[in-house]
Amino acid sequence: MSQTAYPPISEHLDDVEGAREEGRRKMDWAFQHMPILTELQEDFEAEKPLSGQTIGMAMHVEAKTANLVEVLADGGAEVAITGCNPLSTHDDVSAALDSHENITSYAVRGVDDEEYYAAIEAVIDHEPSITVDDGMDMVAAIHDDYPELIDSIVGGCEETTTGVHRLRAMDEDGALNYAVFAVNDTPMKRLFDNVHGTGESSLASIAMTTNLSWAGKDVVVAGYGYCGKGVAQKASGQNANVIVTEVEPRRALEAHMEGYDVMPMSEAAEVGDVFLTTTGNRDVIVREHFEAMQDGVLLANAGHFDIEIDLDALDDLAADRYEARDGVEAYEMDDGRRLNVVAEGRLVNLAAPVALGHPVEVMDQSFGVQAACVRELVENGESYGAGVHDVPDELDEEIAEIKLAAEGVEFDSLSEEQREYMGSWEHGT
Amino acid sequence: MSQTAYPPISEHLDDVEGAREEGRRKMDWAFQHMPILTELQEDFEAEKPLSGQTIGMAMHVEAKTANLVEVLADGGAEVAITGCNPLSTHDDVSAALDSHENITSYAVRGVDDEEYYAAIEAVIDHEPSITVDDGMDMVAAIHDDYPELIDSIVGGCEETTTGVHRLRAMDEDGALNYAVFAVNDTPMKRLFDNVHGTGESSLASIAMTTNLSWAGKDVVVAGYGYCGKGVAQKASGQNANVIVTEVEPRRALEAHMEGYDVMPMSEAAEVGDVFLTTTGNRDVIVREHFEAMQDGVLLANAGHFDIEIDLDALDDLAADRYEARDGVEAYEMDDGRRLNVVAEGRLVNLAAPVALGHPVEVMDQSFGVQAACVRELVENGESYGAGVHDVPDELDEEIAEIKLAAEGVEFDSLSEEQREYMGSWEHGT
Amino acid sequence: MSQTAYPPISEHLDDVEGAREEGRRKMDWAFQHMPILTELQEDFEAEKPLSGQTIGMAMHVEAKTANLVEVLADGGAEVAITGCNPLSTHDDVSAALDSHENITSYAVRGVDDEEYYAAIEAVIDHEPSITVDDGMDMVAAIHDDYPELIDSIVGGCEETTTGVHRLRAMDEDGALNYAVFAVNDTPMKRLFDNVHGTGESSLASIAMTTNLSWAGKDVVVAGYGYCGKGVAQKASGQNANVIVTEVEPRRALEAHMEGYDVMPMSEAAEVGDVFLTTTGNRDVIVREHFEAMQDGVLLANAGHFDIEIDLDALDDLAADRYEARDGVEAYEMDDGRRLNVVAEGRLVNLAAPVALGHPVEVMDQSFGVQAACVRELVENGESYGAGVHDVPDELDEEIAEIKLAAEGVEFDSLSEEQREYMGSWEHGT
Amino acid sequence: MSQTAYPPISEHLDDVEGAREEGRRKMDWAFQHMPILTELQEDFEAEKPLSGQTIGMAMHVEAKTANLVEVLADGGAEVAITGCNPLSTHDDVSAALDSHENITSYAVRGVDDEEYYAAIEAVIDHEPSITVDDGMDMVAAIHDDYPELIDSIVGGCEETTTGVHRLRAMDEDGALNYAVFAVNDTPMKRLFDNVHGTGESSLASIAMTTNLSWAGKDVVVAGYGYCGKGVAQKASGQNANVIVTEVEPRRALEAHMEGYDVMPMSEAAEVGDVFLTTTGNRDVIVREHFEAMQDGVLLANAGHFDIEIDLDALDDLAADRYEARDGVEAYEMDDGRRLNVVAEGRLVNLAAPVALGHPVEVMDQSFGVQAACVRELVENGESYGAGVHDVPDELDEEIAEIKLAAEGVEFDSLSEEQREYMGSWEHGT
Repeated sequence: MSQTAYPPISEHLDDVEGAREEGRRKMDWAFQHMPILTELQEDFEAEKPLSGQTIGMAMHVEAKTANLVEVLADGGAEVAITGCNPLSTHDDVSAALDSHENITSYAVRGVDDEEYYAAIEAVIDHEPSITVDDGMDMVAAIHDDYPELIDSIVGGCEETTTGVHRLRAMDEDGALNYAVFAVNDTPMKRLFDNVHGTGESSLASIAMTTNLSWAGKDVVVAGYGYCGKGVAQKASGQNANVIVTEVEPRRALEAHMEGYDVMPMSEAAEVGDVFLTTTGNRDVIVREHFEAMQDGVLLANAGHFDIEIDLDALDDLAADRYEARDGVEAYEMDDGRRLNVVAEGRLVNLAAPVALGHPVEVMDQSFGVQAACVRELVENGESYGAGVHDVPDELDEEIAEIKLAAEGVEFDSLSEEQREYMGSWEHGT
Repeated sequence: MSQTAYPPISEHLDDVEGAREEGRRKMDWAFQHMPILTELQEDFEAEKPLSGQTIGMAMHVEAKTANLVEVLADGGAEVAITGCNPLSTHDDVSAALDSHENITSYAVRGVDDEEYYAAIEAVIDHEPSITVDDGMDMVAAIHDDYPELIDSIVGGCEETTTGVHRLRAMDEDGALNYAVFAVNDTPMKRLFDNVHGTGESSLASIAMTTNLSWAGKDVVVAGYGYCGKGVAQKASGQNANVIVTEVEPRRALEAHMEGYDVMPMSEAAEVGDVFLTTTGNRDVIVREHFEAMQDGVLLANAGHFDIEIDLDALDDLAADRYEARDGVEAYEMDDGRRLNVVAEGRLVNLAAPVALGHPVEVMDQSFGVQAACVRELVENGESYGAGVHDVPDELDEEIAEIKLAAEGVEFDSLSEEQREYMGSWEHGT
Repeated sequence: MSQTAYPPISEHLDDVEGAREEGRRKMDWAFQHMPILTELQEDFEAEKPLSGQTIGMAMHVEAKTANLVEVLADGGAEVAITGCNPLSTHDDVSAALDSHENITSYAVRGVDDEEYYAAIEAVIDHEPSITVDDGMDMVAAIHDDYPELIDSIVGGCEETTTGVHRLRAMDEDGALNYAVFAVNDTPMKRLFDNVHGTGESSLASIAMTTNLSWAGKDVVVAGYGYCGKGVAQKASGQNANVIVTEVEPRRALEAHMEGYDVMPMSEAAEVGDVFLTTTGNRDVIVREHFEAMQDGVLLANAGHFDIEIDLDALDDLAADRYEARDGVEAYEMDDGRRLNVVAEGRLVNLAAPVALGHPVEVMDQSFGVQAACVRELVENGESYGAGVHDVPDELDEEIAEIKLAAEGVEFDSLSEEQREYMGSWEHGT
Repeated sequence: MSQTAYPPISEHLDDVEGAREEGRRKMDWAFQHMPILTELQEDFEAEKPLSGQTIGMAMHVEAKTANLVEVLADGGAEVAITGCNPLSTHDDVSAALDSHENITSYAVRGVDDEEYYAAIEAVIDHEPSITVDDGMDMVAAIHDDYPELIDSIVGGCEETTTGVHRLRAMDEDGALNYAVFAVNDTPMKRLFDNVHGTGESSLASIAMTTNLSWAGKDVVVAGYGYCGKGVAQKASGQNANVIVTEVEPRRALEAHMEGYDVMPMSEAAEVGDVFLTTTGNRDVIVREHFEAMQDGVLLANAGHFDIEIDLDALDDLAADRYEARDGVEAYEMDDGRRLNVVAEGRLVNLAAPVALGHPVEVMDQSFGVQAACVRELVENGESYGAGVHDVPDELDEEIAEIKLAAEGVEFDSLSEEQREYMGSWEHGT
């Protein structure tokens, strides 16, 4: 394998020492509030379960993720990492990581396409035995360009919805040649990340971008999946009057039975003060809706891509357009109505100027599962065939137990008789 | 097939006319609040989709169920019905049903075992082509004693958790010889019935049995499945301080993240004011817990059988025992503490003296699915092989749509582009 | 003073012993959940602070009140009591009270007007030194017919809003000739009684009268005072979608900012599923509203008198009228719509067939204040001039402290420095 | 009166034009969400009710307040303004204000004491007929140094708790020589500002400073007044487990009955994850509490001054102290525990780096009352004698009505009969 020229972060910075220090400060703050990783770090450092492994990672290189990377390295692995999005990298965190003796970080903020892929190649040059992805860049690059590595790969982990969907598609086509855990799909991730993480951070990001409050507002939540439930529940908990739009009748009924108003977007458009899309679909708020909206509304996206709100149509409609506030673009109509788009319709808890992404504790749960999955691959990798695998329930439960223990929360266990009773019940008597 | 001697309800009553009238009044009240059955009744009466079918039913014969029975009869079916529990039958409702030209009701309150089974046989003598069960009595009797009928049976429906579990066990053993829909397992039933139905009716039953309030009470909810979530959410909504006990770590964590206190029952026993079991397991509250409880606590069950609270152990411990109030048995300890058991530890929303069972609207959803499943069996029964079948999503969604329409709730539908986008997404691009 | 012929309860009953036993059982249940009265009872019994006093009472003679009566008697007072409403008396509880050596009870259920006033006279014949009223019947009778008693009266207590209003009117006219505590107006009563007591018991009474649920219902709450807030909060806590109607703009805004829908009754009438009046005013729901309502709505009153819903107009409009269910009168319109009035539009938590009045704990707080006020009259009565007096904050706080102690709730106290700081602050520096 | 040398903001800035533009942008955003001021602005501009008046103001010169200032100027008044805190001034907003033909702004960020008072004098040199204060600086300066102006002063308005307290003290001492409205004390301000404004903005500021979430956290709220209720309600609405500490038993009971845990701070210290003080008192969290706290806790103040958390004692205890994150100071104990103080224990919704102060809508209500009070002083000033005056209910109601109208919320009004009924009731019949 040829040596690429792409150098690690330290060669990109002027003040490496200063960057490391600042990056470490950021990591420390997060780590202080990541009890699961803290517990795993202790175990991993003592037991070195990942000795002999090389882990290739492409993830958002910021403080929370960095703590996962370090736990893996402390567990005995060699880790090579790069970013999974040129804009999400914190150079200081990247530098702090790179100073760890087992870690090489190639993540640099704001690189161009060529550099981005060179960095991925630089990671692959370490000949990873395990991959950890946030959007399957690493898996794709290996399958496309380094198929010869696959034989020595134990397996991989994928963090995101998008990544998992694409991997399943590859799998269906018979094109996925090693085992990958769908970390995204575990209950531990879906429930907490979406309901609590997206819900809380989206609302706080909007409030701190706009200086507006929720009490008494008509808040339209488009979509009532996990994210939509979270946003609706948290907005209601700030005394907003929540309106839900849905396309699936049972979800619509669920929202109705929870006590929310349910209506089509065409009606909601007329009464809403704030609109939050959480559907994962496109064109959820479109021209006819913009035409019906009141002056001063806020439009934001907490779903996936920036296509839920049709900004092209909005731009088309608008007579004028200007930055009303950092992170808020006002589209002014001919009739004087101003429709305010927060964070360009991109994920508001990531893209707003004050946004910090998901809360630390929520990422701790998700990354705890990641670390446990990597360990599982080392210990039992051979038992998983090529393809996408659900995370075993035991691993997910183990992470829940660690979290509960760290929070000082005790719970019951089944007695022998109870276990038998449930067993007999489940198998019929 | 021999003629059994067991007569329908009308021959058991003195004042048949009076009973019919009172039964009709009860049914009318419920029907007024069953928009789904109302809608289906209109369709069924107009289209007679069940013409030529004979339906054998064993269900609780009270006002809500009676409306399902009548809708099936109005749809063209001959219906023969008996109770599924000798104590749950309302004779007046049974009489009102029996007065329908297409219905014969054998349900009589308080019958003994022999009569109970004679009534089941009487139903089977009608040679049902479809069975509708609440605890699989009808399926069992046919398989055990009338196997010759099975060939002409299109299929069946089962309403309960217990029934479905047993049917699955039969199915696994290869002993289930016709198709049965697991109505119990649909989202429409699980979500609304358990969360809203059990939650609300259990709390209201306790309040109206005891004249006590929820505000400021420490309410211990054992189990955080659907029922437990419902009870916790509704108790919290009455300003109780909710404490959850669990044996599964992820559920425990879910309760913790919802903001509830989570602890082992041994600790909860010391602080709780009211204890509600919702586990479906046995011996959830036992001797050591009784010993730790405060004077004046309430103990009730909203789960399944009356074995969640170990009443034998409690009786053993108690120095005295008396009816403190209709529906409340006080167990007095040597040290003067009084532990108050509501409704003998049986399902509190059914067994408390003032209890009315599940709310009407909740049963409307569940029975709407039943009616749709019966129609599905007639229309497409041949496509379902012997065994337990999940209710097709389309039927469940249809019922949700009918409910929403009846409530005047409109919702969106996917555009062609959106459908394509979701499709492309789900299959990967 | 002449001897009246009106005899105590025991002479009105056939089975006095049986009645006493049943009455005692009812009282015991309540007392078990009245920690404040329990604590005061112990003190009163030990210290006999009411020795030498005679207390004349006209109150609802049922289990909760009876415990107050007994505490006063245990405190050394002679107590003579009668009912304050001929229909609210429980004869068995009256008999149990009457068996106490210091108590004579003249309360008998269902007496006619003549007997009702004879019973009041019988109480006054005991020459009370203190009066305790629930609607100022005792105060009125003494001022009207026995003014000669006033000189020896230490003071009185009044439980109700109505009573206090009337007393204030007398006071303004210079016609109130002894001191009366406005027990009704204390924070301890208003907050808990109205918000939690009325809120919870009204909703539970409706649910257990109708077998209907709250989830997803549009519940219209007329009036957003303390009662309205309680009903709105508790209904929202059962997943209803709450709609508030108001006439005072700041209250309307408060409801709006809490996240509720606010609209005029004329609009609410069109969308509501359940209507609850809590205004204390008349004609809140009238003909034009009935005309706009949907089929199957529930109408109930949780405010004061049965004039909030204009039943005459409803009767006028209705083509038919019948008892749809115990406690529910259906008014059927020409167009087939059925409007269902619960408990005849009287206070639903008192007048519904299953209703039990206010929860025990709530009355415990209110009666705790009563007992403390009676003791205050004995100890410091001379310091209160003729007229209506607010309950001194110290008494109200004392009851709060007793309740918290009974619940095992500890709280902080101010340090000397903190007290000084607050003092300096409040007096400006 | 001598001419002071202190110049308006424009002479302090290099790029006045640029500052004005940016200041205007900030004001516009706020104004877009201030429907009450928008409505009053239209009326004021049309009717010029303040013609001939000169208003002297000392307030926080930032976007929200600036809109009030401009409304007053548009109403015909000459306005001279300076800051009420050298650190809260936004120079760009000050410049934008100063560009209004009727406004002179002397507010400059970061001035020293001498300049601060020179700016106040500069305002007074305009010889105000009305004062509007945020902390009574203007009233104090006039009474102390320019008593000769008092005769021509119509009256004043005071925005803050502190200011009102001091004015009442002056009033009691007979030292307040003109009428001042206690704007701070209106229901419109207290309810919304404290409950919704403080509650929401404090929690959002903490979340966006720390990247932490609320779900499942034990959040200790010290004090259960209006602010404490707001913080508790909003934290609970984000799925925190709320613990309340109090010194007043009825408030403690109120919190308990709401379903919160209530305990002394010494116990809460052991279990809390986040501590928020809202008492207005000093030394609420002290050495013994720090000693008991867990590693990683957050400490913040949402009450008044920065003396609620005893930071001196904390500094004393700490082995080390460092900035853990912008806006977070970590105090590290000998045993390794880190206690994290947010925003130096100053008001967290003002002093945190990302903080934006109270939400716009909340200030709109408060400033709406201000504007109405200024107009009232002009129209009926002579009817208010020297001293502190409550804002007349009609003004407060008028502002509520304007807000409701702007939100499109309609409400009912009393019929003649209802008004009579309530009247008769209130006066007793």
